[in-house]
Amino acid sequence: MKYYIGIDLGGTNVRTLLVDEQGNTYSEVKDRTEREKGPDYVTAKIVRQIESLDYSVCGGFEQVLGIGIGVPGPVDTVHGVMIMASNLPGFENYPICQKIADRFNKPVFIDNDANVAGLAEALLGAGKGYPTVYYITLSTGIGGAFVVNGKLISGGRGHAGEVGNIIVKTNGYKQGALNPGASEGEASGTAIVRKGKEILGENQVNHAGDVFRLADEGDLKAQAIVDEVVSEWATLFAAIALTVDPHCFVLGGGVMKSSPYFLERLNEQFNQKIHVGMRGHIPLLHVALEDCGAIGAAMLPMSQLD
Amino acid sequence: MKYYIGIDLGGTNVRTLLVDEQGNTYSEVKDRTEREKGPDYVTAKIVRQIESLDYSVCGGFEQVLGIGIGVPGPVDTVHGVMIMASNLPGFENYPICQKIADRFNKPVFIDNDANVAGLAEALLGAGKGYPTVYYITLSTGIGGAFVVNGKLISGGRGHAGEVGNIIVKTNGYKQGALNPGASEGEASGTAIVRKGKEILGENQVNHAGDVFRLADEGDLKAQAIVDEVVSEWATLFAAIALTVDPHCFVLGGGVMKSSPYFLERLNEQFNQKIHVGMRGHIPLLHVALEDCGAIGAAMLPMSQLD
Repeated sequence: MKYYIGIDLGGTNVRTLLVDEQGNTYSEVKDRTEREKGPDYVTAKIVRQIESLDYSVCGGFEQVLGIGIGVPGPVDTVHGVMIMASNLPGFENYPICQKIADRFNKPVFIDNDANVAGLAEALLGAGKGYPTVYYITLSTGIGGAFVVNGKLISGGRGHAGEVGNIIVKTNGYKQGALNPGASEGEASGTAIVRKGKEILGENQVNHAGDVFRLADEGDLKAQAIVDEVVSEWATLFAAIALTVDPHCFVLGGGVMKSSPYFLERLNEQFNQKIHVGMRGHIPLLHVALEDCGAIGAAMLPMSQLD
Repeated sequence: MKYYIGIDLGGTNVRTLLVDEQGNTYSEVKDRTEREKGPDYVTAKIVRQIESLDYSVCGGFEQVLGIGIGVPGPVDTVHGVMIMASNLPGFENYPICQKIADRFNKPVFIDNDANVAGLAEALLGAGKGYPTVYYITLSTGIGGAFVVNGKLISGGRGHAGEVGNIIVKTNGYKQGALNPGASEGEASGTAIVRKGKEILGENQVNHAGDVFRLADEGDLKAQAIVDEVVSEWATLFAAIALTVDPHCFVLGGGVMKSSPYFLERLNEQFNQKIHVGMRGHIPLLHVALEDCGAIGAAMLPMSQLD
């Protein structure tokens, strides 16, 4: 059995695991990130976490083959640094991989949180056994990851999977720095809540699930919102499928809690928007793992060192 | 030096080459396909072509490592058959690879013509040296290919690169079986001619280049067509870039003859539609090779057997 360390470095918490190649976790530690204290402080905390894990199962720390880190934001995987770090101030271009590699003399890999979650799903979760997997998270935002033969396609600047900025509506809503009509501005959980509050009333909608429930209960305005969002997702998924023709999609994120309300229709419309020869061949699968950020991070060295 | 056979099987002509791993051609034969005589007849013709090449440079046919075939239409690369074959009647699911492999006892690979052209550009042409390359042909239609570390990503059903069906305009023009507002219906050479004839007059426009020329000469209606098409290309390229973040695009096809009129603007608008961290990092390169279908086909065994 091979053993790896996975680190899920978020804006709130940082979690470090010892896992084996099948994704079993043997030792775990979790602390507040305290990001306001800066990257040197946070990195020292990660070093202590790594030192504090119990390595008896694998016969000592020296048996660990590599270390992976998942972070919120796009990553330069070649140089092992974050390119943007709005949730981890100071981490932009900070040599976190180099620092940890120097300290422990192990190979260290980094990628963004959607990518490592996608990697975990491709290797151990719903995408297991499919040669290529496109993972999509429909959540506060919309993100994704493309895994080919067990390896992430991170892209030239670590932005592969940034599908939330793909335009799905001409002259659509402009959210923040995104394109007008970007999928995240039109069809993320945030966008569904915005549309719901605007059209159904401020008090009717607290989360995306409310809009799906109201539509299901017969509210015509809610149904119109759902119609539009499902059509926009279908456009997005079709764009991705026509670009890389994945063997499956794996779908996660909070919005998928409402999937009984929309998944069948999404599947129909998605298939209408791809070529005839592809129809029925690209399943839309639910994620199979929960809270898999740290495990996915541990899969980074496994997939890269193979 | 390693040697391969490449076959460019088109609806009109079929061409077979002996090439080395650097793309140098040593022997070549080209005939009419005579597709109306059916797949057995055409396959027998290919067999004769292979037999008729001069193998003295490599010390005999037995030194050839593999055979590749490029065809017009989507391919099931796993089973070595065409999935759709509107330009080669009877070739749908016809075991062309198996027949040629049985006859010559060599590994035989097949992929569609855009994919093999993209492979040639990635390995030998404008994309040489880039870890990932997205090739796009702007021609009668719009097609593409994604090459990662010298290998084609063909996809689960051979449809990777079918970017002509990606929607770039909500409720846009419906061309044939494509999506309303698909890039090929909105911004292919055919689409530009259609828009030009509609708006500028039937006799003003014979090919896409006329529209670009008229816009350059100050025709405001022609400029409006060019504005829309460039914006739609930018939307398309951004969708692809946000899906896989390629290290470069390589652009070919007849429409690129007009690129002095639009490439700079396309580059600007494309960069506006991707994330800040990607801007300036994904060059839009001209193809470097001409008529590279058969050479690209010869690269199939090279990239797969490596």
